[in-house]
Amino acid sequence: MPDTAEFHESLTVIDGCQFSNWFQCGFADSQVYNVDRSYFEQWREGGVTAVQVTVTTWESARPTLDTLSRWYRVFRDYADVVMPAESGDDIRAAKAAGKTAVILGMQNTSAFEDDLGLVEVFHKLGVRFAQATYNLQNFVGASCYDPVDTGLTRYGRFVLEEMNRVGMIMDTSHVGDRTTLDCIEHSSRPVVATHANPRFFCDHNRNKTEEVLKALAGCGGIIGLATYPALCPKDTTLAGWCEMVARTVDVMGVEHVGLGSDCAMGWTTEDAMTINMWRWSHAPDYGAHSKEHPGWDPMPDWWPSSAGYPNITQGLLDIGFSKPETAAIMGGNWMRICEQGFATQS
Amino acid sequence: MPDTAEFHESLTVIDGCQFSNWFQCGFADSQVYNVDRSYFEQWREGGVTAVQVTVTTWESARPTLDTLSRWYRVFRDYADVVMPAESGDDIRAAKAAGKTAVILGMQNTSAFEDDLGLVEVFHKLGVRFAQATYNLQNFVGASCYDPVDTGLTRYGRFVLEEMNRVGMIMDTSHVGDRTTLDCIEHSSRPVVATHANPRFFCDHNRNKTEEVLKALAGCGGIIGLATYPALCPKDTTLAGWCEMVARTVDVMGVEHVGLGSDCAMGWTTEDAMTINMWRWSHAPDYGAHSKEHPGWDPMPDWWPSSAGYPNITQGLLDIGFSKPETAAIMGGNWMRICEQGFATQS
Repeated sequence: MPDTAEFHESLTVIDGCQFSNWFQCGFADSQVYNVDRSYFEQWREGGVTAVQVTVTTWESARPTLDTLSRWYRVFRDYADVVMPAESGDDIRAAKAAGKTAVILGMQNTSAFEDDLGLVEVFHKLGVRFAQATYNLQNFVGASCYDPVDTGLTRYGRFVLEEMNRVGMIMDTSHVGDRTTLDCIEHSSRPVVATHANPRFFCDHNRNKTEEVLKALAGCGGIIGLATYPALCPKDTTLAGWCEMVARTVDVMGVEHVGLGSDCAMGWTTEDAMTINMWRWSHAPDYGAHSKEHPGWDPMPDWWPSSAGYPNITQGLLDIGFSKPETAAIMGGNWMRICEQGFATQS
Repeated sequence: MPDTAEFHESLTVIDGCQFSNWFQCGFADSQVYNVDRSYFEQWREGGVTAVQVTVTTWESARPTLDTLSRWYRVFRDYADVVMPAESGDDIRAAKAAGKTAVILGMQNTSAFEDDLGLVEVFHKLGVRFAQATYNLQNFVGASCYDPVDTGLTRYGRFVLEEMNRVGMIMDTSHVGDRTTLDCIEHSSRPVVATHANPRFFCDHNRNKTEEVLKALAGCGGIIGLATYPALCPKDTTLAGWCEMVARTVDVMGVEHVGLGSDCAMGWTTEDAMTINMWRWSHAPDYGAHSKEHPGWDPMPDWWPSSAGYPNITQGLLDIGFSKPETAAIMGGNWMRICEQGFATQS
């Protein structure tokens, strides 16, 4: 498939969310700077134009500064392969330079604490996405695992409004349905789910109901569909995954579907448990996983890492998407969202 | 003196350091946002083009974020009179717009904690000056009050190097002589004292010896001379203060002398004591003051506030400075320092 290879190379490929152990340290161990370059090389190998990387899962403001400063070092030390992106122009510049644009994002509003001024602080530091909450009710709203979904809280509304103002995109991936729908209702800009699949594909709390999928599309938003096995039926094939993409397009429209692998490599099972339980539980919590399989699953053989993105391009063409549709799903849609969503409103 | 008024209006006037209670709250009380607009109006009345404002005295990283976020609000809420400045171009734009440029600065490296990555974090947040230490030995170096002057510490050298790299100016105003001379020796960019006077004018720990003055000039730096009474002989007149300027120019050269009022208004005596003692002393410490006069002195009648800057222009002309020399002292020299010092080195 040399034709597909050339087509893939021409694409703007954007991954809505990755969360690997880039710094090869225990989770939230801020002292270590021991970067694993292979992740960046996988991005290049897969022709990835831009990736949203997670800089906060549970952390408050101060430790998040450490993670950000490590990324700033990466931008200097690995400038041959990656560069920071805070705007659509930055992403285009990365494509032109043959580098991967790194978009800093948070999987929690924990770094905003209960301090509204911190939204602007983190925007200035380059953060362009924030998920309302990770796996637990917080100041802003409820997660997909909480028995009662508060919807967006009073503080949550202020945070959303401030994110709208400064140009930071609200991510609802791990977020409860009611909180997600509240975000969509109250946002003046498109709301997204950077990494999730439809509930009809795999019945998992993290996956989205048709009501939510339609609401995301209705507000101009997007879902980044995940290759991550826990969010897919067991032993999903490339064709099966691409079939899911087609069914999601049927529900949302082709301009509202993109990629969001949720690739989380290099963590030990202990790291995974810490990321699930943080400091709020002493009892085991398995997040998207189970007691039997508490660690992160290996990625599927057709997407072993970011280097597997050409396979998805091929799979989408094979299932009948046109080249323009494939280009939109592979990154064109994310490009539009980033371009619109990152601009500060005056 | 209508001619002087017109001349003053044409000048780029830059104040190297002010630290007033802009937010009308107790010191380090981060919750209050109750801005006193009169300070900004005094800047406009005095024809002030730019001011370095203090955002940290003792605070670590996290509370400094609060103070910064309050300034970001000021930049929006008082955009008719002030604007942020992170570059020479920003200062010129403020002059053209008839607004005062606010340069965010720290009177301590406390916000860098022992975390080198925070220098870049605060640079991204707009901070352009950092004083090695306030009145106490810290991770970076010794103050002018410490009985033993360590010089620049090992960490201090890294901080200075990182400040040089990102484009943040090292301020040595409250800093011990040996630490100051170390900064000058190891810096690849001009080092400054934003607010101090010569020791020969007033024998005060905070004021600078001729050796230090010459070293500051030798590295291309500047001293911002202070109208603040504690750093001047009792009842200094405008003519006496301008005579001091002339003697400082004799030592350093006219291109190395500027303004740095150290204007600190609106604080109670209790605030002043907190600013002196912070959390490191339970015994009274009076900083630049005394047991008899623990609070901030009122400013002199010829410089009651920033609105008094036209008087200094007149005083400098009266003592025999030419108009170009006066322009250099009033702000031209600071403009050069800011222009050079704020640019990130690649």
